[in-house]
Amino acid sequence: MADPRFFGLAGPFGLGEIAARIGADLGPGADGAKRITDVHALDEAGPEHLSFLDNRRYVSAFTASRAGACIAEAEMTSLAPAGMAVIVAKKPRLAFARACGLFYPEPEARAGRHASAVIDPSAMLGPLVEVEAGAVVGARAEIGAGCRIGANAVIGDGVVLGEGTVVGANASVSHALVGRGVVIYPGARIGTPGFGFEASAEGVVKVPQLGRVLIGDDVEVGANTTIDRGSGPDTVIGRGTMIDNLVQIGHNVVVGEGCILVALVGISGSARLGNFVVLAGQVGVSGHLHIGDRVVVGPQSGIKDDVPAGAKVMGSPAVPMADYGRALAVIKRLGRKGK
Amino acid sequence: MADPRFFGLAGPFGLGEIAARIGADLGPGADGAKRITDVHALDEAGPEHLSFLDNRRYVSAFTASRAGACIAEAEMTSLAPAGMAVIVAKKPRLAFARACGLFYPEPEARAGRHASAVIDPSAMLGPLVEVEAGAVVGARAEIGAGCRIGANAVIGDGVVLGEGTVVGANASVSHALVGRGVVIYPGARIGTPGFGFEASAEGVVKVPQLGRVLIGDDVEVGANTTIDRGSGPDTVIGRGTMIDNLVQIGHNVVVGEGCILVALVGISGSARLGNFVVLAGQVGVSGHLHIGDRVVVGPQSGIKDDVPAGAKVMGSPAVPMADYGRALAVIKRLGRKGK
Amino acid sequence: MADPRFFGLAGPFGLGEIAARIGADLGPGADGAKRITDVHALDEAGPEHLSFLDNRRYVSAFTASRAGACIAEAEMTSLAPAGMAVIVAKKPRLAFARACGLFYPEPEARAGRHASAVIDPSAMLGPLVEVEAGAVVGARAEIGAGCRIGANAVIGDGVVLGEGTVVGANASVSHALVGRGVVIYPGARIGTPGFGFEASAEGVVKVPQLGRVLIGDDVEVGANTTIDRGSGPDTVIGRGTMIDNLVQIGHNVVVGEGCILVALVGISGSARLGNFVVLAGQVGVSGHLHIGDRVVVGPQSGIKDDVPAGAKVMGSPAVPMADYGRALAVIKRLGRKGK
Repeated sequence: MADPRFFGLAGPFGLGEIAARIGADLGPGADGAKRITDVHALDEAGPEHLSFLDNRRYVSAFTASRAGACIAEAEMTSLAPAGMAVIVAKKPRLAFARACGLFYPEPEARAGRHASAVIDPSAMLGPLVEVEAGAVVGARAEIGAGCRIGANAVIGDGVVLGEGTVVGANASVSHALVGRGVVIYPGARIGTPGFGFEASAEGVVKVPQLGRVLIGDDVEVGANTTIDRGSGPDTVIGRGTMIDNLVQIGHNVVVGEGCILVALVGISGSARLGNFVVLAGQVGVSGHLHIGDRVVVGPQSGIKDDVPAGAKVMGSPAVPMADYGRALAVIKRLGRKGK
Repeated sequence: MADPRFFGLAGPFGLGEIAARIGADLGPGADGAKRITDVHALDEAGPEHLSFLDNRRYVSAFTASRAGACIAEAEMTSLAPAGMAVIVAKKPRLAFARACGLFYPEPEARAGRHASAVIDPSAMLGPLVEVEAGAVVGARAEIGAGCRIGANAVIGDGVVLGEGTVVGANASVSHALVGRGVVIYPGARIGTPGFGFEASAEGVVKVPQLGRVLIGDDVEVGANTTIDRGSGPDTVIGRGTMIDNLVQIGHNVVVGEGCILVALVGISGSARLGNFVVLAGQVGVSGHLHIGDRVVVGPQSGIKDDVPAGAKVMGSPAVPMADYGRALAVIKRLGRKGK
Repeated sequence: MADPRFFGLAGPFGLGEIAARIGADLGPGADGAKRITDVHALDEAGPEHLSFLDNRRYVSAFTASRAGACIAEAEMTSLAPAGMAVIVAKKPRLAFARACGLFYPEPEARAGRHASAVIDPSAMLGPLVEVEAGAVVGARAEIGAGCRIGANAVIGDGVVLGEGTVVGANASVSHALVGRGVVIYPGARIGTPGFGFEASAEGVVKVPQLGRVLIGDDVEVGANTTIDRGSGPDTVIGRGTMIDNLVQIGHNVVVGEGCILVALVGISGSARLGNFVVLAGQVGVSGHLHIGDRVVVGPQSGIKDDVPAGAKVMGSPAVPMADYGRALAVIKRLGRKGK
């Protein structure tokens, strides 16, 4: 399926092994020894390929498919065409994502340091660390086992990266303690001083930014995203939080676990987000406020006050989703009357 | 006109040569052999300089100018002061832009690889390629004739750059097939994995992003802009599309030809834009929708539904420009009543 | 207070010296010889630490604190607990910011060029300049005394940096004359060509961008922020202006002195801002307009017309803050009626 210029294909795998490794079951009559060489969409798959059906809208593509195997829900097995083995999963899309990871695994760190990388002698690198061309690792930095530091990335003095963390090309990380399995995409900036100053008679006085950035395990930080370090307290990103590209996170912000922050979101200083909060694209959050657990904020919304846990809000300034819809309807009506 | 610290002046050129090379005509009585040394604004130009008049508001500057030559529309020739030759063009600003390019040409690639550049032995570089200091070119990359790779830029394994393409300083490109004459500005990130994951009982599962980025000829990608690669399908940017700085383009997005995307625009995954679409600054586009050919979207608008070809829309959520104006007027009136 | 992994502690200092250096006075009975080793929050400070009280809400923390010294307003001195010396300041937070700078000074440039830095022989470097690993300095660049060029940063041909200016890791600067004491954070892009082109029968024609970027003294340019060079005129950033992360500034924009531009702001080409203008997060400014001195613009607002000096505006499109509040109230009421 994937372009071999860019993606390395693993396998082939037996159907039984695939099912076991993606946490799914072989359907009735499926031969666990059947050899599968790749993953494909239903309409492109052949007899050695694995596909998936997630949405009943595509049943006709399923019944017409030449795929040798397909991940589907249990009730679909009876509709499978001749020659198609079924792997049964409750969430076929999720199971297929895992199968894709099996056939196209993330490249492992190629242990070793490129000759052009500049690593301070006092830095401590764990086993199997890869440091690519032109990357710079500062004094006393601690780089965990299996980390990958991308080409021309810059890791500042004292930074800690947990095991298996990946830093993309041209990214820079300073003043940060980073967990395990974190992915920092190319061009991300972590640990820059917050936007802190005080007015004085002689103009603006910069406030030294003496905190850090603490990033939990399995966090992703998108390309060209910026996370300022704390001013004294720390800036904190909770475990498993996914941050998209071009997001700004101000100093002292605390983001809980499992949050999703979509591209171009801006979070002002000292705001606190609970766990599993979703901020859609281009949302802005004012400083010093609190957003409760599992809050969902619609795109381009502006959060200017606290939001209670579980709320779904929208608009600038944001209001509960239902109110937003009503106000919008009224405005539309008023606009139309003018015709 | 331009600071010689930064810009190299070509010429001088004869007036006739200039007219021919910018696709314009000498006005009545103009001496094609007249020697022109530089381009200048009307009020700063002298007898050896070329200027232009585009807007009739500036006729008095035109009649008072000491410029030796001026690009203007035909009906202006009779108003030219003594000593000013006129080059006649229907679009004087466009013709002047071309003249500026004649006097201040883009520097050509200085063929050669800086000693500090790191180029994989399996990469294939065409003739006259320049690779600046600290740049990294990955395995099996194919770099077309006359390409310029900026300092500390990173070109990933397998990437293809067409002839004459320029990659700016500190930019990174991976998983991409890039056309000819493309300009990728400093800090742009192309080919990063899309923001793709599935919820599962054990938390978020990342979906391998197995597509590419396909960029057509003559595209520009602004500074610090981010373009994610596809998840299986490709992310596609059509020929001649101009993308400003700090734009986010999600995975599987298809942008047509000749589109203009202004700064801080965000386009969510799998959205499709037709040809010659204009998105003003800070526009947000939701995922999986379609924007037709020649649609124009006003600044800060939010596109949440399909937009038919040719529509002009505005607002968040976006509505036809006329409706937007009416709704705005009503809101203003209501606000004022409160006084 | 600060993590010694990342911050170097200076001192100890005598109380009298601290007061003198932060422009404050010893309170009644305070011993100028008292030895202070660090700065801390009121609830964490011990007998050798300096703290501050800025807000009367925290008086109980003040009276309960074990801090050996505290910066506070004059009227607080009588409430100080036994063992606490008071330093009297009108703006305790400002004075404390200065004290933090005393205990945790910005690291000075470590004069010298890393062996891996690539500096054109024609570049002129002042005394005490530090050029970190992998940085690139172009031909004829002039780097003032005490400048610091971060790892893998790229300084283009002819660029001028004033004394004590700092360029962060992976930043790039071209076509720019930069003042003294400027801080350009990691990943910022300065001097890229503006987004300029003219439509023609054969498609878009790029307009050569022949201006520069002029940056005044003491300006800060945030991480991954982009500032395009002028098209012929220059792009200008006035003295002391603070620009946050991920801000876009278009070609020919003129920003006055002492302005504050918060993250994700976008300013379109040829807009002019007066002095001490504040643009909150995600504000968009259309091209070719004028914003007067001391204007304050609320978050996510869209400026589409000139704004007179001193105005406070909000909304998209922006209106005076009072009108905005009234319109909002009306919309809310209408929305609620629907219930």
